[in-house]
Amino acid sequence: MPRTNKRYELFYWPEIQGRGEFIRLALEDAGASYVDAARGPEGTRKLLALLRSASKPPLPFAPPFLRFPDGSLVGQTAAILHRLAPELKLVPAGDASRIQALQLQLTLADLVGEAHDAHHPVGMDLYYEDQKSEAARRARSFVLQRIPKFLGYFEAELDRARARKRGALLGQHSYVDLSLFQVLEGLHYAFPNAMARLARRIPRLLALRERVRARPRIAAYLHSPRRIAFNEQGIFRHYPELDMEPRRKARGGGSRR
Amino acid sequence: MPRTNKRYELFYWPEIQGRGEFIRLALEDAGASYVDAARGPEGTRKLLALLRSASKPPLPFAPPFLRFPDGSLVGQTAAILHRLAPELKLVPAGDASRIQALQLQLTLADLVGEAHDAHHPVGMDLYYEDQKSEAARRARSFVLQRIPKFLGYFEAELDRARARKRGALLGQHSYVDLSLFQVLEGLHYAFPNAMARLARRIPRLLALRERVRARPRIAAYLHSPRRIAFNEQGIFRHYPELDMEPRRKARGGGSRR
Repeated sequence: MPRTNKRYELFYWPEIQGRGEFIRLALEDAGASYVDAARGPEGTRKLLALLRSASKPPLPFAPPFLRFPDGSLVGQTAAILHRLAPELKLVPAGDASRIQALQLQLTLADLVGEAHDAHHPVGMDLYYEDQKSEAARRARSFVLQRIPKFLGYFEAELDRARARKRGALLGQHSYVDLSLFQVLEGLHYAFPNAMARLARRIPRLLALRERVRARPRIAAYLHSPRRIAFNEQGIFRHYPELDMEPRRKARGGGSRR
Repeated sequence: MPRTNKRYELFYWPEIQGRGEFIRLALEDAGASYVDAARGPEGTRKLLALLRSASKPPLPFAPPFLRFPDGSLVGQTAAILHRLAPELKLVPAGDASRIQALQLQLTLADLVGEAHDAHHPVGMDLYYEDQKSEAARRARSFVLQRIPKFLGYFEAELDRARARKRGALLGQHSYVDLSLFQVLEGLHYAFPNAMARLARRIPRLLALRERVRARPRIAAYLHSPRRIAFNEQGIFRHYPELDMEPRRKARGGGSRR
């Protein structure tokens, strides 16, 4: 039974999970009433027309964007979730919790961006086949350095959150847990070797992944045709040549951002 | 005269503007009392110690992070600004304006991330010198496709905001205007040829840049030793070989994210 009768309209590329999936998971887990608008007939055309419309500013820069029941259009995954979560009861009440969730979601967004760039390091206007050698170098760095660093951070956060339950957000079921689930699903799909090697270092993350997967509405969603399968047009892509065994540590030095 | 007597502590790498600069500009424009903590003696050591401390979750994943007067530590540039802006009167009151600002700031963050990756496409754990040929390819795509797309969006938003002043945020002086100023400064530093070619297509953005630069506190800040100069350790780097003249359009196709 939906917790809300409001109707949301999600706009995202119809053929991939992509960034839209973080919004879908929140809407599905809450049992919210929504339309995945761009998956219907003429979906992509409607999506592009909205991006070029003369609507009230700001127009979103790119999908995903969500039309709220009051008519407002919000883009940027983390901004959508930040506004949506209190309505869906997917974040504890209070500014401190909402900021904590936003900070964690943005850290996940950084990881998602790097997962994308692992197969598209030169530019998203080129095909993977035109940047395979660059992707091999970038993926090595991503697999050996960045995945362990990000997942180590979230594992430690889960540990800290458990030790100091009061006020802790991670692992207490919020939209951030749903997003973390999605990132873990994506990384396992794209880099099964790398994730198998990491498994013993991230027990709390793997437990969270199973907890989220078993939530009744999420389980029903994952088995429904509404869930698009992972594929090689999305953010998380399985190219076996990028999921290599470790050979040597990448050289130190470089860039702070 | 400071608008507030609260004292903020900013933690960011001491030798670059980087993402910390978006926070510095907000604090400076508001005349807030703050310490740029990592630029003092033992600064980097203190910064790293905080990241490894057993503080209340969530710890930030990476700099910049800000300690608020109530002791809480917030990381992720857009999350820091989202919490900070109402205290500094750098966003209009009300949830709708705050979400609008967050959405625009996150779009700027995407552009900043791509500006960084133009010189570090393979990985931030490697030196630029170890990825020069990849950087040349990525920078071509960034200069020919991405800068025009992002700046075209913000120029159009400024236009839409002017046409429908009520409720519009961009150009009405908020932290987003300060961030937009910083991005324009950075792009002009890193890609002077590319920006010169774009000038006639972004008159509103260039006017905004001059308006922000002339704000008394910003002008004073830019001429003070507190402003770190752009350099080739930061996000916006001037490598003449990446600021090329256009030769041909990059091939279409590729990736949606």
